[in-house]
Amino acid sequence: MSWLPVAADSGFGLDNLPYGVFSTPGTAPRTGVAVGDQVLDLAAATGDDVHATGSLNAFMARGPSAWAAVRRQLQERLGDPAHRATVEPHLLPRADVTLQLPVEVADYVDFYSSRHHAEALGRMFRPGSPPLPPNWEHLPIGYHGRAGTVAVSGTPVVRPCGQRKPADADPVLGASQRLDIEAEVGFLVGVGSPLGTAVPLADFAEHVFGVCLVNDWSARDLQAWEYVPLGPFLGKSFLTSVSPWVVPLAALEPARVAPPARDPQPLPYLRDDDHPWGLDITLEVRLNGELVSSPPFREMYWTAAQQLAHLTVNGASLRTGDLFASGTVSGPGARERGSLIELCWGGAEPLTLADGSTRTFLEDGDVVTISATAPGPDDSRIGFGEVTGQVLPAR
Amino acid sequence: MSWLPVAADSGFGLDNLPYGVFSTPGTAPRTGVAVGDQVLDLAAATGDDVHATGSLNAFMARGPSAWAAVRRQLQERLGDPAHRATVEPHLLPRADVTLQLPVEVADYVDFYSSRHHAEALGRMFRPGSPPLPPNWEHLPIGYHGRAGTVAVSGTPVVRPCGQRKPADADPVLGASQRLDIEAEVGFLVGVGSPLGTAVPLADFAEHVFGVCLVNDWSARDLQAWEYVPLGPFLGKSFLTSVSPWVVPLAALEPARVAPPARDPQPLPYLRDDDHPWGLDITLEVRLNGELVSSPPFREMYWTAAQQLAHLTVNGASLRTGDLFASGTVSGPGARERGSLIELCWGGAEPLTLADGSTRTFLEDGDVVTISATAPGPDDSRIGFGEVTGQVLPAR
Repeated sequence: MSWLPVAADSGFGLDNLPYGVFSTPGTAPRTGVAVGDQVLDLAAATGDDVHATGSLNAFMARGPSAWAAVRRQLQERLGDPAHRATVEPHLLPRADVTLQLPVEVADYVDFYSSRHHAEALGRMFRPGSPPLPPNWEHLPIGYHGRAGTVAVSGTPVVRPCGQRKPADADPVLGASQRLDIEAEVGFLVGVGSPLGTAVPLADFAEHVFGVCLVNDWSARDLQAWEYVPLGPFLGKSFLTSVSPWVVPLAALEPARVAPPARDPQPLPYLRDDDHPWGLDITLEVRLNGELVSSPPFREMYWTAAQQLAHLTVNGASLRTGDLFASGTVSGPGARERGSLIELCWGGAEPLTLADGSTRTFLEDGDVVTISATAPGPDDSRIGFGEVTGQVLPAR
Repeated sequence: MSWLPVAADSGFGLDNLPYGVFSTPGTAPRTGVAVGDQVLDLAAATGDDVHATGSLNAFMARGPSAWAAVRRQLQERLGDPAHRATVEPHLLPRADVTLQLPVEVADYVDFYSSRHHAEALGRMFRPGSPPLPPNWEHLPIGYHGRAGTVAVSGTPVVRPCGQRKPADADPVLGASQRLDIEAEVGFLVGVGSPLGTAVPLADFAEHVFGVCLVNDWSARDLQAWEYVPLGPFLGKSFLTSVSPWVVPLAALEPARVAPPARDPQPLPYLRDDDHPWGLDITLEVRLNGELVSSPPFREMYWTAAQQLAHLTVNGASLRTGDLFASGTVSGPGARERGSLIELCWGGAEPLTLADGSTRTFLEDGDVVTISATAPGPDDSRIGFGEVTGQVLPAR
């Protein structure tokens, strides 16, 4: 309960309290916490300069004890009417603030951990071969993306140019004709780790601060031509959008579920029986306002804790601000797929929208919005806000 | 000429003047310029705080006019004996300083632009297929690496652990048994570019500040098991070493040569007839002090200017501190290969060292040192210093 009015379906109640960075006209970006339709100016409310740096990084670096202490304090101050007089002056309507990229992204890694997605793409990109590569069930496949083009929700999506290879013709340079989305969940590292040491799976919550939504925009035609043998590059690097609100890992405790059974059993460093980090997050993908898919995150084969253990098993260090994303979230159902290439099966089965139009890949002017919720305590919902972007014509 | 004694073979004469970041006991890291056996404390000598930030980034961001002005000033002050009294107090013996990572690396991209290397690896990793993938002659293949594990020369190389797949057996976790080097040349971006715009090939020198040496340590067994379909990940991300001295692009003007002829002709955005950025840099790879290879950079099929044009053709933005590396430098000769996997042909043809021992991949305790020189004006040499590292046992 809060002395603040919070709508039952807000998703931004006291059980959530996601962090973001906001600005208002004439003021510098600073940390805020979303509650209901308001944002609490954390720099002003606490007097702690760590919240006035313009990114969450310095706070994220403080570690889980500090995160828990601030969370407890916020729940008390926003819950107990005794604090209303001192807190209320630091609340602003969320509609009046501009949300910024919440973190300075250090390294960005994208995984590939939905079996349904990997199998679908395998069938389309490598017809005639087994849909899953032989390593897929043994390790969470991932690769590094471009940290410098991670941008906050709302950043326009300029249709990228690049090389594509028409069948039976030489490659051409031009605007992508197969611009796609990838609906993902992102994890933000708060506490780094030293070079040369592995972070065990059990230490996941010692390092990961929170969770956001990710749209890893993808130019499938560029990607198909470039990606052998060193992986995706320009087909992804033009933009990756993230939601402005970072949901604390602690808020997702009620959403933890057992991940799918793994067969074969993974190697010991990836075994998670004692630390299951399946998360019952349901994504929603809207194209020009129309719901086209509801990808279920609980179906992901590899969890974020396994991804982090794998990412560091070779001794790679972590830094505050590292972002790693789940890979496209796709479930088994036809309307549970997290990319258009799956929803329209490579263009062969166009989507029919409510207005009668059809879509395979994105057209100029299209707006894609991804949102998500997870179960909170006592039948409440934890909201993630949204990550959105509009496609602009190629330059 | 300089009033400073600089040995003829120093490589660090007034035509070079590479930048680095150094510290001495009890002092904060700051920018220095190498000249002969000395380092000039640029923060002290100029009084410009941009050189006291502990990285080259702020200076690199100022752009080519500022770089040229400082270079002219340094050449005058180090050349004309009239300045000796004011400059000499700010010189330190290079042997007395500790060199730091010269830049805060933003994004790290690694290319694959030696035809000799790509063909050799194609033959070894994909036997039975054409050695070059079909896209190789049409675009400079590249991928993103881990910026957070780029470290300065001298950083120990802890042998990485990870999954590898023995033939006809399940994958196992363990220390890499095929630890390798990749001798490369790296390019550092000084001036960024906005999201959504391409940087044309002709603008290369407007953005790139300087050049360093790179050893992209590689665990071939991890890489072979993980890299399909999304590219190298843990096989590379444990460490990438860079030389501490950044040679200004301007110092390499005399080293510019025509790149190899391209057939087929690349697409217009990659045509470089008017802006040839072939560079006559000769690398030397030493294993435990013994010269094992002399890779010729002038043989690279794709130049750094083409790489930069390709990297941004999709609208990806550049940031100050972006590092992009050439890919392994290998020439046509047997002792011109920039990796051990090529030098020992995948283990089939071990190298015999001067002491009679043999090597395929690196053993614990091995020290690998890569150095390089390029022609300067009037028969002088431009030196790059070295990037070195010793292999430590797996933890």
